[in-house]
Amino acid sequence: MTSWYEQSAQIPSAEHRQRAFERQQQLTKPPGSLGVLEDCAIRLAELQRRDSPAVEKIAIAIFAGDHGVAAEGVSAFPQVVTGEMVKNFSAGGAAITVLARSLGAAFQVVNVGTLNELPPLPGVRDARIAAGTRNLHIEAAMSAQQCEQALQAGADSVTAGLDLFIGGEMGIANTTAAAALACALLRKPAQEIAGRGTGVDAAGVALKARVIDAALALHAPHLNTAFDVLRHVGGFEIAALSGAYIRCAQLGIPVLVDGFICTAAALVALGMNPSIRPWLLFSHCSAERGHRTLIEQLDARPLLDLDLRLGEGSGAAVAVPILRAACALHNEMASFASAGVSRE
Amino acid sequence: MTSWYEQSAQIPSAEHRQRAFERQQQLTKPPGSLGVLEDCAIRLAELQRRDSPAVEKIAIAIFAGDHGVAAEGVSAFPQVVTGEMVKNFSAGGAAITVLARSLGAAFQVVNVGTLNELPPLPGVRDARIAAGTRNLHIEAAMSAQQCEQALQAGADSVTAGLDLFIGGEMGIANTTAAAALACALLRKPAQEIAGRGTGVDAAGVALKARVIDAALALHAPHLNTAFDVLRHVGGFEIAALSGAYIRCAQLGIPVLVDGFICTAAALVALGMNPSIRPWLLFSHCSAERGHRTLIEQLDARPLLDLDLRLGEGSGAAVAVPILRAACALHNEMASFASAGVSRE
Repeated sequence: MTSWYEQSAQIPSAEHRQRAFERQQQLTKPPGSLGVLEDCAIRLAELQRRDSPAVEKIAIAIFAGDHGVAAEGVSAFPQVVTGEMVKNFSAGGAAITVLARSLGAAFQVVNVGTLNELPPLPGVRDARIAAGTRNLHIEAAMSAQQCEQALQAGADSVTAGLDLFIGGEMGIANTTAAAALACALLRKPAQEIAGRGTGVDAAGVALKARVIDAALALHAPHLNTAFDVLRHVGGFEIAALSGAYIRCAQLGIPVLVDGFICTAAALVALGMNPSIRPWLLFSHCSAERGHRTLIEQLDARPLLDLDLRLGEGSGAAVAVPILRAACALHNEMASFASAGVSRE
Repeated sequence: MTSWYEQSAQIPSAEHRQRAFERQQQLTKPPGSLGVLEDCAIRLAELQRRDSPAVEKIAIAIFAGDHGVAAEGVSAFPQVVTGEMVKNFSAGGAAITVLARSLGAAFQVVNVGTLNELPPLPGVRDARIAAGTRNLHIEAAMSAQQCEQALQAGADSVTAGLDLFIGGEMGIANTTAAAALACALLRKPAQEIAGRGTGVDAAGVALKARVIDAALALHAPHLNTAFDVLRHVGGFEIAALSGAYIRCAQLGIPVLVDGFICTAAALVALGMNPSIRPWLLFSHCSAERGHRTLIEQLDARPLLDLDLRLGEGSGAAVAVPILRAACALHNEMASFASAGVSRE
């Protein structure tokens, strides 16, 4: 019996793609002169099965969870910050909440496993699986059941009928888990992928790399599938992102992937279900060291490159107006014929 | 007696810069994690002399003019397209008009010299200097008086009190004039700068380069100042852009520079009045061959790199939401203290 997350994604519409491509050739501009914006409009048309693609109904879901591996001293911030930031999301003071507001996007936070229990907070759904993951440096981060729960929590955050889904994450030490996932899936040494995260120094990066390499050596006998990798060295919020991405692809919802951690979650999701690839759009190349490598492995071209390294889905939110501009141009520009403009 | 365009630009506020920098350190994010968005917010604060920078009052001015050098066969489109596109701007069907509408920006078109006289059109100001420039391949593109007129027409399009100014251009064959300006000002051979423009093939690019090199050799004895360069190998709409940029800097209005032609106009303006440099923000790196070289010479970091090569100010308009996001984050995010979030 196949699991829900192995079921096929929707298939983009070749017919809408062709019509969108033809429309782009008719608009009053030299062919191809809107570059990536033309690609975006055509891609959204085929994914949304619409002649007039749109990015109006946006949902942003932030998954928060803690990481046992924080005990190894891999983060510049104390672990309590994960929960404190959940409160900041709820109160509207975090970067992603400011951006969600300015986009008019639906916004939810899902607590999949902060260290401490949190009081009920407006806009925060309690789906807490445990008090953080186990320390992946010494044991599997999650049980198989916990990993399934986290994937499901992500999928449950997606509702049908959206124009675009953005996932974000909050979890002190989660760049260590994300780097470990990427190293395991891409068979790269940790020093190629581990970066400064929220701001550790060179010694901190070296420590992270040692922790990751040791963890991968420890778990090596068990890392046979993407699910295995996720459960051993991932995190609750990363698994939730993977589950959300897969569900979006199954429901026919385009996903705008954020930075390093979200891209690692996308790699996991692709490992579990390769059919989702067309549904993933990549928003930006972050300043986190390993991100460019991940992007290249995915043969993706992110929309932005602004040295962002905040997470929370913030880079994806900043990129939304690029997609909106692509749609407005595709839908509203005049054709050579209608405007009476001569061609080459 | 100094000309109006030699008078000093406003000086950015070091005090507002310092306060904006300090505010960025207090916001609930790892220091520096918003990358270029932090730089944008700080820069707008110092230019606008505000603690809460904003990009709401935007004016977009498109300058249209024809080029005698079109007679050399340097463009993929017939010269009549310049005037046809002015009508398309007026009717709202061009890329820049779609974008201006979606930004809520004030929009005007200034006809500084289409080949043919145009009927009165809504939103189009008639400041036509001549029926296009002369052919720079065989004579000076403009008289000194015409060049002054074009600079003035640009300056006249700027009104005080704006948050941001965007200039755009329309003019068949104007990548040839812009490349000639850049080559003269940067002392580069044409083959390093000349590109495909609206879409000429490799032979067309080679022809453009030959035309430019021949023009620069012809005019060499007269190219002593930036004004001389502009008058001999520039164009009406390019001069208008240069004049508008200088006036913005004198009025204390930040400018968001578009692609290749606008950057060439910025180079001219800087040559005429170096004090304007702080007022120029660069929106994108275009797909036009020489643009990256110009950007590097200006030591600028454009916000976007989306293979755009349409002109009209379209790339600058697409970049506006990045500045808006930078302002929203700067103005609306909570501080560590106010949100009760722990620091490193």
